[in-house]
Amino acid sequence: MDAIAPASPPVASREDCLALDRVDPLAALRDEFSLPDGIVYLDGNSLGALPRRTAARLAQVAAREWGEGLIRSWNDAGWIDLSQRIGDKIAALIGARAGEVSVADSTSLNLFKALSAAVALQRDAPRRRVILSERGNFPTDLYIAESIAASHELVLRLADGAHIDEALSDEVAVLMLTHVNYRSGRMHRLAATTRAAHAAGALVVWDLAHSAGAVPVDLHGADADFAVGCGYKYLNGGPGAPAFVWAHPRLTDRMDREQLRQPLSGWLGHAAPFDFAPSYRPANGIARFVCGTPSVLAMSALDCGVDVFAAAEPAGGMAALRAKSIALSELFIARVEARCAGMGLTLVTPRDSSMRGSQASFAHADGYRVMQALIERGVIGDFRAGEPSAARDGAADTSLAADLLRFGFTPLYTRYVDAWDAAEQLHDVLKSGAWRDDRFARRGKVT
Amino acid sequence: MDAIAPASPPVASREDCLALDRVDPLAALRDEFSLPDGIVYLDGNSLGALPRRTAARLAQVAAREWGEGLIRSWNDAGWIDLSQRIGDKIAALIGARAGEVSVADSTSLNLFKALSAAVALQRDAPRRRVILSERGNFPTDLYIAESIAASHELVLRLADGAHIDEALSDEVAVLMLTHVNYRSGRMHRLAATTRAAHAAGALVVWDLAHSAGAVPVDLHGADADFAVGCGYKYLNGGPGAPAFVWAHPRLTDRMDREQLRQPLSGWLGHAAPFDFAPSYRPANGIARFVCGTPSVLAMSALDCGVDVFAAAEPAGGMAALRAKSIALSELFIARVEARCAGMGLTLVTPRDSSMRGSQASFAHADGYRVMQALIERGVIGDFRAGEPSAARDGAADTSLAADLLRFGFTPLYTRYVDAWDAAEQLHDVLKSGAWRDDRFARRGKVT
Repeated sequence: MDAIAPASPPVASREDCLALDRVDPLAALRDEFSLPDGIVYLDGNSLGALPRRTAARLAQVAAREWGEGLIRSWNDAGWIDLSQRIGDKIAALIGARAGEVSVADSTSLNLFKALSAAVALQRDAPRRRVILSERGNFPTDLYIAESIAASHELVLRLADGAHIDEALSDEVAVLMLTHVNYRSGRMHRLAATTRAAHAAGALVVWDLAHSAGAVPVDLHGADADFAVGCGYKYLNGGPGAPAFVWAHPRLTDRMDREQLRQPLSGWLGHAAPFDFAPSYRPANGIARFVCGTPSVLAMSALDCGVDVFAAAEPAGGMAALRAKSIALSELFIARVEARCAGMGLTLVTPRDSSMRGSQASFAHADGYRVMQALIERGVIGDFRAGEPSAARDGAADTSLAADLLRFGFTPLYTRYVDAWDAAEQLHDVLKSGAWRDDRFARRGKVT
Repeated sequence: MDAIAPASPPVASREDCLALDRVDPLAALRDEFSLPDGIVYLDGNSLGALPRRTAARLAQVAAREWGEGLIRSWNDAGWIDLSQRIGDKIAALIGARAGEVSVADSTSLNLFKALSAAVALQRDAPRRRVILSERGNFPTDLYIAESIAASHELVLRLADGAHIDEALSDEVAVLMLTHVNYRSGRMHRLAATTRAAHAAGALVVWDLAHSAGAVPVDLHGADADFAVGCGYKYLNGGPGAPAFVWAHPRLTDRMDREQLRQPLSGWLGHAAPFDFAPSYRPANGIARFVCGTPSVLAMSALDCGVDVFAAAEPAGGMAALRAKSIALSELFIARVEARCAGMGLTLVTPRDSSMRGSQASFAHADGYRVMQALIERGVIGDFRAGEPSAARDGAADTSLAADLLRFGFTPLYTRYVDAWDAAEQLHDVLKSGAWRDDRFARRGKVT
């Protein structure tokens, strides 16, 4: 899947970008979204934009399904099947099959379920006491792994992302990785790393938070074990949208009552929830990873976000989106390096596009202020602070300690001219020293 | 709190009901809701009705906060504070204080957190190996307790709801009860039972799913330990709305890093989530019970539902709502017993209103068909099947095995005339034998 070559015509001017946008077969997809005027939005990797169809769907779900249908809509409007129905659509984006993906809860909670299940599958291997992950993985992944390790008397061990293979051993029960690192944008080789983990006897839990809808993923092709992912980034499901969870059917088939239960045994993961039976009996397959009642409003919005990918199919689907994403980030990186040389920026994202997700990150010592100044000019990326302890811990990857400017390139709605303009604005901010203004000093708690 | 006497004037005719509605100081609250014409909705204890303000708020959150504000709305629109802000409003309904309630995830998941935390607080009491609950408690409560018991080598023990006090012993680590039983509507004495549990050395986790917004609750007055509750029943937050969790500050204050962590350690429960620190450090107080990112759409809808209670304040707030709820259910019970005598109905809900939540349940051998026939006539209650094993297990409470017709009385939008009309329709269905028609045979999977 990394072999797709970007269409990389020479781009020497803003006019060239506009010309590229005019002939881009994916360009019409931007009309699927409601985007504010005058904004270059390069933060779809944190919160995807609003699909136009979502507002109408929400109004319909509220007024007609909830307001008029009331409790009857669990059946009549198909609310009860939303998890499975959206899951089937997401499955098509990640190389899974219909019936294998449940949509429910948050990424954190799905990680808890998947990692708990994976650990349980290794319980007959008492020497395997390690959950292995990547230093610099998204914190919630590490926090959840920390909790599970503590309650199972396991150890959470972290290795540099580039050296995961070497850290695999017969001590490792589960390897838990985020496919595309949220800070650096570095992408693991999903199939090769899964193979290496399996060769070492470990199971793998993949977090696809920065992959699903952004890069082609082939879970079956990689023979992966478990995967989770996020609904509100590249899937455009809205702030805090429900997340998804997948397990290979060879594992869910093993998971009968005696062998394995994920511990969040809520009633909607029961084999027959509406029997209201006093004892838990897990549903078949991935449906046992559902817990409590999911928000129908949130699920419906996610459904709309995922449906945009169907609209991209005639123009080439995920393969075409990936090609454009690479072209956008290559263009942006090239322009930034050409225009901002000597201005304190260091590219952190791998230059090799096959090792990169759909983003570009640059380290800058005053990254926070620079990003605030950029946002004020209408270019919205985000800032991710470095982790000072990474340097103390002797992490080989020095980018872990660096403050980063992070730019996401969502090919569904980002234009070539946006990448050009963003690089120009970044140049202007750095060149002018505008970012030094006091109003850009650090204060906010969220980006 | 059980001493509030309902206003119980003699009601001898439908005209009397209309007269009561005309003078009801709470009557105007019905206009806060969008309800379908020609429907008597008595299932607000399963899914609350749509507040009129919700549709406009959802449209605004989608178009303006998400669509225009994009990622900036986490700060600018206050998304990041929604859990706390809504929690403060719910706190006012359950006798808790501002800052003590987090809104997040589902009731099942909050139960998992609260019960895990309670069990952990008892870990220095190795003789206490029992989680005690009620036979006939809502299944998800039992499933979650079953899971926690299994992973902590505890035993889940069930007692009849009327005999909880006698089942308390020095073996009990945690008593987990639903304040108002979802089938029978029987209400526990929150303060007295908490006192008895504490006297026996047990902690108590209260599930307020059928209480919050329905009956006055005073968690501090009862000196309770933990509570969770549901957003989509009496709080009218929409299908699958987020749930809430409360812990007494004397416990959260104890919960420093060394002493206690609830295991669902997602990043938004971290003391400083936007530091992206590699190790988990729980937030102070109840904020540590938040896990992953909550759906802003779902939270905003819940916010609207909870706000309706503020509109009820001038008319007397929860005390007035409780009085009306009792009057409605007394009226309904009296009418049903007068009109349907000898037609196979048995009242299951306690006759003593101080022992009853905001519902009335009747056993009927063909309850499923009767309810379907009623729904066809525009009276929406719901059906809850009996649990055959309860009879086998020798449960003293024979209602556990019975099929039930369940009618919820949400005083925010239910009129006296609705209670009257519902009883009349029930009479007509039973008297005519309409329910025997084949189209009412059991087939659906949800009510």
